[in-house]
Amino acid sequence: MSKSTVGLLGGGQLAMMLAQAAVPLGIKTLCIESQHASPASHYTDVWVAETLDEALIDKLINTCDVITLENENVASAIASQIESVGKLAPGTTALNTSADRLVEKEFINAQGIATAPFVAISHAQDLAKAADELGFPFLVKTRRFGYDGKGQSKISNNEQLATFIRDYDGSPSVAEGLVDFDCEVSLIAARNPQGECVYYPLVQNEHREGILRVSHAPHDNTLLSDKAQALMQTLLKALAYVGVLTIEFFVCGETLVINEIAPRVHNSGHWTIEGAHTSQFENHLRAVCGLPLGSAKAKGYSAMINCIGTLPSPSVVADEPLAHLHDYHKSARPNRKVGHITVNGEDKGQVDEVTKRLRALV
Amino acid sequence: MSKSTVGLLGGGQLAMMLAQAAVPLGIKTLCIESQHASPASHYTDVWVAETLDEALIDKLINTCDVITLENENVASAIASQIESVGKLAPGTTALNTSADRLVEKEFINAQGIATAPFVAISHAQDLAKAADELGFPFLVKTRRFGYDGKGQSKISNNEQLATFIRDYDGSPSVAEGLVDFDCEVSLIAARNPQGECVYYPLVQNEHREGILRVSHAPHDNTLLSDKAQALMQTLLKALAYVGVLTIEFFVCGETLVINEIAPRVHNSGHWTIEGAHTSQFENHLRAVCGLPLGSAKAKGYSAMINCIGTLPSPSVVADEPLAHLHDYHKSARPNRKVGHITVNGEDKGQVDEVTKRLRALV
Repeated sequence: MSKSTVGLLGGGQLAMMLAQAAVPLGIKTLCIESQHASPASHYTDVWVAETLDEALIDKLINTCDVITLENENVASAIASQIESVGKLAPGTTALNTSADRLVEKEFINAQGIATAPFVAISHAQDLAKAADELGFPFLVKTRRFGYDGKGQSKISNNEQLATFIRDYDGSPSVAEGLVDFDCEVSLIAARNPQGECVYYPLVQNEHREGILRVSHAPHDNTLLSDKAQALMQTLLKALAYVGVLTIEFFVCGETLVINEIAPRVHNSGHWTIEGAHTSQFENHLRAVCGLPLGSAKAKGYSAMINCIGTLPSPSVVADEPLAHLHDYHKSARPNRKVGHITVNGEDKGQVDEVTKRLRALV
Repeated sequence: MSKSTVGLLGGGQLAMMLAQAAVPLGIKTLCIESQHASPASHYTDVWVAETLDEALIDKLINTCDVITLENENVASAIASQIESVGKLAPGTTALNTSADRLVEKEFINAQGIATAPFVAISHAQDLAKAADELGFPFLVKTRRFGYDGKGQSKISNNEQLATFIRDYDGSPSVAEGLVDFDCEVSLIAARNPQGECVYYPLVQNEHREGILRVSHAPHDNTLLSDKAQALMQTLLKALAYVGVLTIEFFVCGETLVINEIAPRVHNSGHWTIEGAHTSQFENHLRAVCGLPLGSAKAKGYSAMINCIGTLPSPSVVADEPLAHLHDYHKSARPNRKVGHITVNGEDKGQVDEVTKRLRALV
């Protein structure tokens, strides 16, 4: 096999960690990104371009064996252009499905899998209908381009509903009923074109203000784990998926409800760099390059702590023997993910203790 | 603490893996290397320069907070220039000691630690003396610039001695008696300027034709491990060492004899990327940047297989779930280290089995 070149659309921290994982595998990467000083630029060549056009994508297609992305919000014409020459992974079905919250929920339900109850919103009267069907409180989320709680509103009573209706600009949205969950978990899996699949252990996630704060892995619950893998299998197959796919679940007793899916490596899988036999980044690259997949088993226990806004001092993090800093080399900004810390060890108690100390710092 | 920039003299695979480990720590690297397409260039900025001169080093000093190296054979004027401004790690004492086999052995013996018996060679008659003192067979090694068995000859009888004496060009060398060893092991440790030390587990190494082929970690032998750590402590202290230091030992029953030391990250420590809590590369960077050191404990069992001459196909390596390829992106050439494979897992039997299969390929 000659050396593969993988094109990366986007140069944020996900592209950065993909590029980092590529070199040892003998895989070259090339990234297209709008910013000059991007996280990925620390590890790979970057073509800086404000917007993606057909000519640029043609050039990328001619340079790369396969093209993947760190963000599902790629223009569908671009994705189709790449797919038409057989170089897109994951494919447009997965991207178009997951880029639109309404399409995603309808697709998941069509597979016989539960989501939160929802109402499609495109007119003001849909909001009143949502209040009737879902009851208060409920959430209104834009169908596209939402992340980290952006583009989301919570409507708790008729007064808030009236204000929201008055200000509503008609942007396509979806209203979601709140799910009374015990906790949130995610499952990350990889599938290669040959149909081989590997499943990482279930991860428990803590969010605050719509942003992932801490992930704990593995979340030891065989029943839930088996259920989550079965649902993942269904989606991977239905999407003829190639690459890493992530599903976020609400846990309600012994029931799993899908919150959302992400057709890419995921923040809740960053612990796999230190904490799994093969990282999600390496397995995504293996998958899109058609290589056999690596073991997704955990090594001991891990916690991943997101650094939001600012990064703690490297010396403070290094002072915890089980902690590993991941600096994304981004400037500090409120609510921005600027790095993460992985705590990994054989003793769960010790991992939890170190995690608690580090959480107090970030 | 502001971001550190670490200068790397040399851009081979050791610099490459240092640069890879630097980014997540928030450390910038900058490499000086004579070749354009160097392994390190896949991960860091490289200043390409055929030779190092004072002006270039001055520029490097002004750009970097600390400067380290992947090869002890740096000109001593250059090392002194960097040390004079307090930016060299490890220091000139360690570099000058380890760059010269004779100085190194004399230094080790001066600490009361055993080496192979040796005779300094600078005239033809020293070779005859070596034959008398050491007996046949013995080795003649150049004092400087030897690696992977280069610059070494074995003299087994008087006829070979006569030929060697006839051809001897007077280059400073050292004759070494052969040590009748049971096996070869190495110990890697890191020490930071604050005097904090961490010790990796003992590694057992297999050489062939003077080149390391396979390392197995950890080599479970508490007695030898304790002895090796005590010897390491002595050397780290005597050299006021900062960074990663490697000692290669011959094991003779319960006795350890030092073969050589290397003032840097070491081929026998590559398994630490997957197989230890903190890799030797990360701990070297932490040490030279004055950060607290990370745990050097092993995660399960590891084997590291060097790929000499050519690299196996990535798909063949990826097909072994516990195997991780490290492609140095070098062109194939006989006896050249072009990559390595790490096998890591919890079950020693399985690791050994996978290692056996992979060895048959490289």
